[in-house]
Amino acid sequence: MDIAELRDRILKQDRRALARAITLVESGRADHRAQAADLLEALRGAGRQALRIGLSGTPGVGKSTFIESFGIFLTAQGKRVAVLAVDPSSARSGGSILGDKTRMERLSRDKNAFIRPSPSQTHLGGVARRTREAVALCEAAGFDVVLIETVGVGQSETVVAEMSDLFLLLLAPAGGDELQGVKRGIMEMADLILVNKADGDLKSTAMRTCADYLGALRLLRKRPQDPEGFPKAMTVSALEEQGLTDAWAQMCELTDWRRANGHWEGRRESQAQFWFHEEVKQGVLAQLQTGDAKAQIAELAAQVAAQEITPSAAADKVLNALDIRTK
Amino acid sequence: MDIAELRDRILKQDRRALARAITLVESGRADHRAQAADLLEALRGAGRQALRIGLSGTPGVGKSTFIESFGIFLTAQGKRVAVLAVDPSSARSGGSILGDKTRMERLSRDKNAFIRPSPSQTHLGGVARRTREAVALCEAAGFDVVLIETVGVGQSETVVAEMSDLFLLLLAPAGGDELQGVKRGIMEMADLILVNKADGDLKSTAMRTCADYLGALRLLRKRPQDPEGFPKAMTVSALEEQGLTDAWAQMCELTDWRRANGHWEGRRESQAQFWFHEEVKQGVLAQLQTGDAKAQIAELAAQVAAQEITPSAAADKVLNALDIRTK
Repeated sequence: MDIAELRDRILKQDRRALARAITLVESGRADHRAQAADLLEALRGAGRQALRIGLSGTPGVGKSTFIESFGIFLTAQGKRVAVLAVDPSSARSGGSILGDKTRMERLSRDKNAFIRPSPSQTHLGGVARRTREAVALCEAAGFDVVLIETVGVGQSETVVAEMSDLFLLLLAPAGGDELQGVKRGIMEMADLILVNKADGDLKSTAMRTCADYLGALRLLRKRPQDPEGFPKAMTVSALEEQGLTDAWAQMCELTDWRRANGHWEGRRESQAQFWFHEEVKQGVLAQLQTGDAKAQIAELAAQVAAQEITPSAAADKVLNALDIRTK
Repeated sequence: MDIAELRDRILKQDRRALARAITLVESGRADHRAQAADLLEALRGAGRQALRIGLSGTPGVGKSTFIESFGIFLTAQGKRVAVLAVDPSSARSGGSILGDKTRMERLSRDKNAFIRPSPSQTHLGGVARRTREAVALCEAAGFDVVLIETVGVGQSETVVAEMSDLFLLLLAPAGGDELQGVKRGIMEMADLILVNKADGDLKSTAMRTCADYLGALRLLRKRPQDPEGFPKAMTVSALEEQGLTDAWAQMCELTDWRRANGHWEGRRESQAQFWFHEEVKQGVLAQLQTGDAKAQIAELAAQVAAQEITPSAAADKVLNALDIRTK
């Protein structure tokens, strides 16, 4: 299939074409990368935008159950929903090809849903680029909501937040001293904290936990991109499908306000620039490791380790010898 | 004073010469940087090594009181002690020039102690380089112990840990849910956790807090650079000067073991290489912002924001046009 045909079929919401295109952007082969770039460029003009929702939560908080319940809630309202995952740890386990679909059995059979397992990648930089490109493909294929899930390992939350319009933090009911699990930096990224498992024996604990997080959110500095009362914390039960209507209403209220106040477009613009600069930075550092500076760097690193030269003097030698210019 | 004279006087433990040399390494002027590099190179061969102790703790844990008590404890044992500070936030407040000395009044009058206030710097990269150079100067000036203090803002703990032989985490007694204040990453860096204020009404709380952290430390993976039983948590009272003998004994036990098992030298080597690569990286990115790629990058960033090109395609344009070579 050539790129023009792939483009047309994606625009016609052909799921197999979408899956094929995502495989293309996930490939590390140079010819595939070139084709992927052509495809993305061909689709850029389509002008379709989905609501990109980032979702973070450590294992055990019921993330899969939440995505399944929330996804089915959305498709029941006539929305088309795509689910992508950012899991840098999957490089070790060889990807969660089977995992993602079996753990969301109902949603994976829903014809208005599209679930894409996380690719097995070795570094977060590559995962970030490929996920952003997969998001763009899902938008072109006419999905209304793209859920981007992260397991919350290392910097993956930052990566997901930097490609999302909304960032949800899913938490489990917990006793006081378990609040430590949530890093302050993650709290500051959240637009909505959802305390899951507000059902059965855990219901009252979930409500207390929610109140605790609400208190913690009040202590954070107000962000310009938030209307009064946001970020919020609320309880949900993914298992009993409770609280989803309210959670969705909050997401809509927040995004409507942001659209009306210029924050939606502003955020997309600054995110696009962030990724541009990030890719330039990574690319330059990669060129440094393959270019003719490589041998000099390795030699100086050995001298630094042997204390024959200070780190700063060695770095100055490399930098003074470097010549960075445009061809 | 020329560099050769400054070198000789530093080797003779002249404090005024040391202070002057630190001012030189803190300067941003190109001619000062060149002189600083010459001085450091001239001193490199002196072969003097201090025990570099990194110390982190949020405001309010009694860090100044601890440094004063611990410093006096060490000088009473005939050790010469230098205190440096890494405080990226001091850029805002204009440095803690008065602060550092007044809050350690007794230690600052001790002739075997040298206290250097944190420079006011705008970015952590510069602070890191200057602090490492100040540490090297203190070592050349024959100090036995160099204490490097950080306020624990942002990445400053990582910076300090990467230039220390030992990393101490000073904490205050706290109730269960206040344990959240300590990020897991910081815990993993600590060689010794000291719960301060184990005196008066807080003594029993301090002991409970210590037990909690000891429990938390047990859950971390054992590190190759630790003998059995490390990292440890213990209580101290900086105010009543209690527990310092034991804390110092633990530090000596740990460093003796590391020296005997090759971890001391190994760590210094890998730290030197870390800083070398870090400075090359920062320098290359800085050259990118000043070189002739700058205009192209700015133009493409504007196109990215206007959605006229994808971030990846724009980055590829920059990278394909770049030519990085050694002169």
